[in-house]
Amino acid sequence: MSKGKLTGADVAQHNSRESCWVIVHGKAYDVTEFLPEHPGGQKIILKYAGKDATEEFDPIHPPDTLDKYLDSSKHLGAVDMATVEVEEKAHDPEEAARQERIKNMPPLAACYNLMDFETVARSVMKNTAWAYYSSGADDEITMRENHSAFHKIWFRPRILVDVENVDFTTTMLGTPVSIPFYVTATALGKLGNPEGEVVLTRAAHDHNVVQMIPTLASCSFDEIVDAKRGDQVQWLQLYVNKDRAITQRIIEHAEKRGCKGLFITVDAPQLGRREKDMRSKFSDAGSSVQASDGDSVDRSQGAARAISSFIDPSLSWKDIPWFQSVTKMPIVLKGVQCVEDVLRAVEMGVQGVVLSNHGGRQLEFARSAVEVLAEVMPVLRARGWENKIEIYIDGGIRRATDMLKALCLGAKGVGIGRPFLYAMSSYGQAGVDRAMQLLKDEMEMNMRLIGATKISELNSSMVDVRGLTGGHNGVVPQDTLSLRAYDPLQAPRFNEKAKL
Amino acid sequence: MSKGKLTGADVAQHNSRESCWVIVHGKAYDVTEFLPEHPGGQKIILKYAGKDATEEFDPIHPPDTLDKYLDSSKHLGAVDMATVEVEEKAHDPEEAARQERIKNMPPLAACYNLMDFETVARSVMKNTAWAYYSSGADDEITMRENHSAFHKIWFRPRILVDVENVDFTTTMLGTPVSIPFYVTATALGKLGNPEGEVVLTRAAHDHNVVQMIPTLASCSFDEIVDAKRGDQVQWLQLYVNKDRAITQRIIEHAEKRGCKGLFITVDAPQLGRREKDMRSKFSDAGSSVQASDGDSVDRSQGAARAISSFIDPSLSWKDIPWFQSVTKMPIVLKGVQCVEDVLRAVEMGVQGVVLSNHGGRQLEFARSAVEVLAEVMPVLRARGWENKIEIYIDGGIRRATDMLKALCLGAKGVGIGRPFLYAMSSYGQAGVDRAMQLLKDEMEMNMRLIGATKISELNSSMVDVRGLTGGHNGVVPQDTLSLRAYDPLQAPRFNEKAKL
Amino acid sequence: MSKGKLTGADVAQHNSRESCWVIVHGKAYDVTEFLPEHPGGQKIILKYAGKDATEEFDPIHPPDTLDKYLDSSKHLGAVDMATVEVEEKAHDPEEAARQERIKNMPPLAACYNLMDFETVARSVMKNTAWAYYSSGADDEITMRENHSAFHKIWFRPRILVDVENVDFTTTMLGTPVSIPFYVTATALGKLGNPEGEVVLTRAAHDHNVVQMIPTLASCSFDEIVDAKRGDQVQWLQLYVNKDRAITQRIIEHAEKRGCKGLFITVDAPQLGRREKDMRSKFSDAGSSVQASDGDSVDRSQGAARAISSFIDPSLSWKDIPWFQSVTKMPIVLKGVQCVEDVLRAVEMGVQGVVLSNHGGRQLEFARSAVEVLAEVMPVLRARGWENKIEIYIDGGIRRATDMLKALCLGAKGVGIGRPFLYAMSSYGQAGVDRAMQLLKDEMEMNMRLIGATKISELNSSMVDVRGLTGGHNGVVPQDTLSLRAYDPLQAPRFNEKAKL
Amino acid sequence: MSKGKLTGADVAQHNSRESCWVIVHGKAYDVTEFLPEHPGGQKIILKYAGKDATEEFDPIHPPDTLDKYLDSSKHLGAVDMATVEVEEKAHDPEEAARQERIKNMPPLAACYNLMDFETVARSVMKNTAWAYYSSGADDEITMRENHSAFHKIWFRPRILVDVENVDFTTTMLGTPVSIPFYVTATALGKLGNPEGEVVLTRAAHDHNVVQMIPTLASCSFDEIVDAKRGDQVQWLQLYVNKDRAITQRIIEHAEKRGCKGLFITVDAPQLGRREKDMRSKFSDAGSSVQASDGDSVDRSQGAARAISSFIDPSLSWKDIPWFQSVTKMPIVLKGVQCVEDVLRAVEMGVQGVVLSNHGGRQLEFARSAVEVLAEVMPVLRARGWENKIEIYIDGGIRRATDMLKALCLGAKGVGIGRPFLYAMSSYGQAGVDRAMQLLKDEMEMNMRLIGATKISELNSSMVDVRGLTGGHNGVVPQDTLSLRAYDPLQAPRFNEKAKL
Repeated sequence: MSKGKLTGADVAQHNSRESCWVIVHGKAYDVTEFLPEHPGGQKIILKYAGKDATEEFDPIHPPDTLDKYLDSSKHLGAVDMATVEVEEKAHDPEEAARQERIKNMPPLAACYNLMDFETVARSVMKNTAWAYYSSGADDEITMRENHSAFHKIWFRPRILVDVENVDFTTTMLGTPVSIPFYVTATALGKLGNPEGEVVLTRAAHDHNVVQMIPTLASCSFDEIVDAKRGDQVQWLQLYVNKDRAITQRIIEHAEKRGCKGLFITVDAPQLGRREKDMRSKFSDAGSSVQASDGDSVDRSQGAARAISSFIDPSLSWKDIPWFQSVTKMPIVLKGVQCVEDVLRAVEMGVQGVVLSNHGGRQLEFARSAVEVLAEVMPVLRARGWENKIEIYIDGGIRRATDMLKALCLGAKGVGIGRPFLYAMSSYGQAGVDRAMQLLKDEMEMNMRLIGATKISELNSSMVDVRGLTGGHNGVVPQDTLSLRAYDPLQAPRFNEKAKL
Repeated sequence: MSKGKLTGADVAQHNSRESCWVIVHGKAYDVTEFLPEHPGGQKIILKYAGKDATEEFDPIHPPDTLDKYLDSSKHLGAVDMATVEVEEKAHDPEEAARQERIKNMPPLAACYNLMDFETVARSVMKNTAWAYYSSGADDEITMRENHSAFHKIWFRPRILVDVENVDFTTTMLGTPVSIPFYVTATALGKLGNPEGEVVLTRAAHDHNVVQMIPTLASCSFDEIVDAKRGDQVQWLQLYVNKDRAITQRIIEHAEKRGCKGLFITVDAPQLGRREKDMRSKFSDAGSSVQASDGDSVDRSQGAARAISSFIDPSLSWKDIPWFQSVTKMPIVLKGVQCVEDVLRAVEMGVQGVVLSNHGGRQLEFARSAVEVLAEVMPVLRARGWENKIEIYIDGGIRRATDMLKALCLGAKGVGIGRPFLYAMSSYGQAGVDRAMQLLKDEMEMNMRLIGATKISELNSSMVDVRGLTGGHNGVVPQDTLSLRAYDPLQAPRFNEKAKL
Repeated sequence: MSKGKLTGADVAQHNSRESCWVIVHGKAYDVTEFLPEHPGGQKIILKYAGKDATEEFDPIHPPDTLDKYLDSSKHLGAVDMATVEVEEKAHDPEEAARQERIKNMPPLAACYNLMDFETVARSVMKNTAWAYYSSGADDEITMRENHSAFHKIWFRPRILVDVENVDFTTTMLGTPVSIPFYVTATALGKLGNPEGEVVLTRAAHDHNVVQMIPTLASCSFDEIVDAKRGDQVQWLQLYVNKDRAITQRIIEHAEKRGCKGLFITVDAPQLGRREKDMRSKFSDAGSSVQASDGDSVDRSQGAARAISSFIDPSLSWKDIPWFQSVTKMPIVLKGVQCVEDVLRAVEMGVQGVVLSNHGGRQLEFARSAVEVLAEVMPVLRARGWENKIEIYIDGGIRRATDMLKALCLGAKGVGIGRPFLYAMSSYGQAGVDRAMQLLKDEMEMNMRLIGATKISELNSSMVDVRGLTGGHNGVVPQDTLSLRAYDPLQAPRFNEKAKL
Repeated sequence: MSKGKLTGADVAQHNSRESCWVIVHGKAYDVTEFLPEHPGGQKIILKYAGKDATEEFDPIHPPDTLDKYLDSSKHLGAVDMATVEVEEKAHDPEEAARQERIKNMPPLAACYNLMDFETVARSVMKNTAWAYYSSGADDEITMRENHSAFHKIWFRPRILVDVENVDFTTTMLGTPVSIPFYVTATALGKLGNPEGEVVLTRAAHDHNVVQMIPTLASCSFDEIVDAKRGDQVQWLQLYVNKDRAITQRIIEHAEKRGCKGLFITVDAPQLGRREKDMRSKFSDAGSSVQASDGDSVDRSQGAARAISSFIDPSLSWKDIPWFQSVTKMPIVLKGVQCVEDVLRAVEMGVQGVVLSNHGGRQLEFARSAVEVLAEVMPVLRARGWENKIEIYIDGGIRRATDMLKALCLGAKGVGIGRPFLYAMSSYGQAGVDRAMQLLKDEMEMNMRLIGATKISELNSSMVDVRGLTGGHNGVVPQDTLSLRAYDPLQAPRFNEKAKL
């Protein structure tokens, strides 16, 4: 019909492993030869063989993916979408319940802190998206420890300080920011919001904080840079490719586009096994799938594994000078986890490190960043090195008090990731905006209450970290029989009618 | 009709932002111009525009508020209340349930300890009042820590001491009291009881303990002083006003009316964000309200923020000599939180400090007063300063054992606040009376059991505080999968019929 | 009718405060004048004025009580019980449910450990009896700590020791016993079993362990002594009476009847407030009772207070020589709670001490006996005094491992109380017998597993007590919002049908 | 009928204590005289008197049991099974529910970690089998501590190490293995899977790990050895018999059949009381059984006691030279529990020790192996003895991180038992295979993330063990009343409809 355009019927014939075409954003592609190379496995593509795969494709792939990775000979051209049969979706009671929850969402103003966004997101996000964002390594003990480690640190606030004017602006790698946090890099933003990472770009602009652009964004790098406004500052988070030429191109492009910092991820030579993520994928595919069928086991291990096969596990200290040679951007190592490696980073002349265990998504039982910070800073100070490098932390920051504890201990700033994803997934940009504003409200209040008028007044005498130095305590497992035999005390009883 | 009196219809015409009249205690007021200045926001006033606002007004404002803060030209005179339409309240199933619970309340005699009053109050108080009294900062971790910190301290009781006669009278700032606690200052007493703080005045008299009068009382200062009997002693709790002239008038008036101590609050340059309080207000206003409507966000942040805008955040150590110059009352700093500031207080020559984190309502992760006490006293003793200043603590005291622990560590006395509010809100003065009597019963018993016949015999060898010195321990987050896989031991089974 | 006998009608006329007769075991008594002196309050007697009070009287009073404490002029003589109207008991659904549970009790053989008896007893005992036995001081934290303190102590067992023959006999105050525990004194045995303490006497005989006879037994002292067989050994637990002549008579009588040890309770100058006990009494009396009615508040504070008004709170160290002068029995101080008092006890020349906090029923936050033991023994050894005195502990012992830990630390033996009450209340003597046998089975096994063939081989290198030396740790209160937002890991799901 | 064969009727006549025949695998046996000697008690045999006992016999007895232990004169010969009445099994609703669960089992691919197999096994195994495998000593605190002890150890991972190739092969007693775990000995494999231990043999072969053959296997020793393939290596776990001649025959036979290590169990002079196991047996026999009936109590104490009466409790250090004299296999002591005994083992010249508390099934409160390891290795290193002996641990290993922690601390390898039993019981050999593969997947990932490319690079600087050195902490028992009075924070509310 429409001249030169393929029809849905044309594409539909190529619906097998032998000849597999798919439609993405109104264009058809022949992915038959690509099937075995697909990092996410063949199965998920074959599910859409001969059909429109846009909805599944979008959150996982930046829009320039097909141009970059599929030879142009496989680009079959435009499809007349009017001729493509729209598949009626089977009634999914779980999805219907989710839609009902979305209709009854709490108003944004009912979110009073960053945890509230997580609670809302858990109810309104698609299960697979929730599983990808919220999952951690193994038993997710590390992920939870990240936040609860802050609870071991208590304040020693000073009173009778004139705190009429409090100023919590600071600088990060030379950039002035309104508050000492940055939006750290997190992958696959479109899983939570159809616009993806650019939502965070806009919110970061409005609150004058830095955004770190993730290698594994759903939006393309250029889309995210294009979304910045004025003198807004962005950094680049980098997974180093096995092919250093690609890596060099990415770095040089980022520098050209104005990025002001290069954050090299060093805690993820292989992306983590995250069972919540794996299990959500599994359910998705139906419980009849057995591990032994055509596809290899590795391919169904969740989004994390699917998108990370290019990462170079051989990256090592000896590569650092090369990075220093290809860019003038300040270099920061993201994912340092013990004092020995911080010292080495200083010796290598990098500008900063992010103490991080990758949000508890990589090595289970990696210590929380704030605990490592408490180990690192005294050693740096003992050597007089505390100003030779900027120390950042990320992981588990949910409250201004968390941020303040890190700053008292000596961090230059903190990265926050998941909470903004949850805010964005639940309420879009307005959610992220409110989340950032809540942090500022808390920060102003708590600067006053701790008795500090500016960031430079925060110091380690203001925190009690004895709870950190005792190590990771477990308690003796419970004595089931006697605890159950115990008859707990009762409060005064209301008459029975009161219970009706 | 009634000559010279306004009618309900007269007032009802002024029911808008443009012209806003309200009735309070039978008199009309023009608050149109005052609207933007109202610390609690315009919205709540506009809700009563053209109507009788007495019920909403009363618990939040001392009766002299309108005289003090609204120009007399806006006082429109008496209203013939017979002509005012009584609004039929919509049926509120939550309120109906509360009334049913009140009908079935446990008898007062069923309250055996201070926690029991809290349990009852939670069921019989209005939600907003409960939320205001019971809320704390952020995650309310500090608020709960205040009581649980006492559980880390254990006794080393002495035996075979003749304890036939035990005497737990003592003195506070020179005043003899029957037991070492005082009624500390808490705001907005009428939220819980229509009579407000004078209920506490009467109970304090009957039990011969000191009452500290709050700046933010629902009753006027003079009403509370008028309610005292005989040689009853009261202290003044002071939030320092930005306008020092007002502050000076308050202090001088208090001294003239016989107050015997000036407790300057130093832990609240800004009153806390208390999310339970904020959320209760929010629900009150209906879930359709969005943060972005006319009123600013700040105005709907709960009672605490609404009533505290006058507090001076610039108050500092350099103001102390001025206070000493305007009063002869002993000066006590309320809200000191670390040993350094206690030492400075001694050097400044104040008569006392209250170690306090403001009931966990201000800075989250401020340490409990009893923990700070254990840090402070050895330092004071090392300098021979332990008698140069009186040290009080408040926060979390619920049992005579809590009080005893503080006294063993060196406190002169303890302040108790919320428990008396809960007792008063549930059972009126009889409740407060019983609460105080229970503390005396426990105190007599426990003095005997610890082996002390008078307060001066309590000393630090009688407590084991090792649990405090280890810092704030968290435990490793739970191992969900294996804990759930574990099959707990079962007690012997009764035959099934026994379960029917 | 029956000559010389009173009739029910005769008695029934005296049913008021003005003239109050009651029937006990078929005899009438005029208690009008005694009413105000009754330690348990007037109310409970008046409930039975003019009626048969036997059922209520029995568990609380030894049979010789009326002879001892009521002048013979008030003994009105036998009543023709056929003429006494039997009151129909109102249907009590709670009691009916209890009877149903009793019918469906687990067989005795289903009890595999001492906790199992507690679980059964909780379901089959009368509520007031359960409340009296199971209650502790204040929040019952100490009561629970007593057992859980043992969980902080772990073993360092030795292997490859020839343990074919293990022998856990030992001696206590010179008496050979089959296993290092004794039946410690507990009050009011008939609350749990109509026969009372003699059940324990018989079981102690069969297992060759010592029974400590309580001052506050339901059986009379002589009944308990009469129940002993052969060369069975008993000790006397003594609450010291304000009237030392009475105390002297009790001691001399006990020595004459063959008691081999005098255990003077030193941790109870006043018996504890036990809220569970108080609350159970309160419910019993009906919720319409107010604290302000005729009877004073003190009188309704549970069984403990009612039975203990005679105890002398002035007892002190200076009384010890007097005890040594009136008896040749070894003297043991029961309820010592810190090392200083143990040293003083040695200096006073007593033969032993029981480290004890009275089962957590007296001073809340008194440390557990086993913790005090770990503090005491190294000090004794440092002075070479470890053989000058026998150290016992009680409180929380439920397993042979608990006993072994105490012995490794240096205790001569341990007292066990509540578990035998629960066993007796559930299954009578057979229950107590099984409980003791279970301890022996566990003991034999665990002696082998720890690598000791006799008691003297147990030593402090076999236990790791580091968990005790860190003090009493609390954990930071939970972070409610984020814990609830956390989405716990799921185990593999069975298909839905499996759940039906 | 069938010549020479017995009929069911013949056998059925011998159905009493006086004459008791049973059929096992189609042959009849006269066990009348054997009844009193049966380690599992007479009752269980008498239940099958005159009947076919095969189903009950099989999991508990290796097939050569009757040949070995029953005199050939009692072997009555083959039975014509067609003539044996097949007993209709009574409908058992619990068994029916189990069969339903089995039908709805999750697919094997839904198991993502070793805990998942336990969860599945708990639902699909027979109750008695589950109780035998899953039970531990006393309150099972030790059993749970074994795994949770690993949670007190956290990593100090190194970054920027080239981990492209990671190699976690190692050797154990000279045998190269693909990963540092072995299949440790566990009893009664046929309870979980009708094929028994040979399933583990095959899986061990496929994954190139060592299997330790248990003395108490359901399969005969020779069956298990026969199942090995190629140069597969097996070890022998030995319970030492009271009759050393039997022990010697077993050892010599094992050596002849190619076993490469002799693991002498030293932590089980008597097998443990495991109440879950005992209770499951009890229920099995019906609740009318009383402990006092014909059979002695000991006989109904679960599988553990039944199968272990031959073990020699007199085994001691002086026997070690004899073992060294009768075999050339390396000797390893299994169940060492403190550093003193490790040192003695080195001095005695044995080749290895397994630090173990027998899976928490023997001495309750024996410390976890990994805690003992952290105590042992520094002492060995201080003496320069760390290479004189191989140190293994077992107990609680569920994750590759657990294994890595042990290796960092200095263990040569770890034993894993229960998880493979659960995998085998749920999914047969495929389950065990997947369990082993999951460990390898985790191991590869975590070697990379900790920054080690081979086993020899793992060292104690990579772990933070401060959590272990604080001893076994308990927390203060909860404050029931105030915790229940506390009103937890609420997340934003969805409209009510959302809940429907």
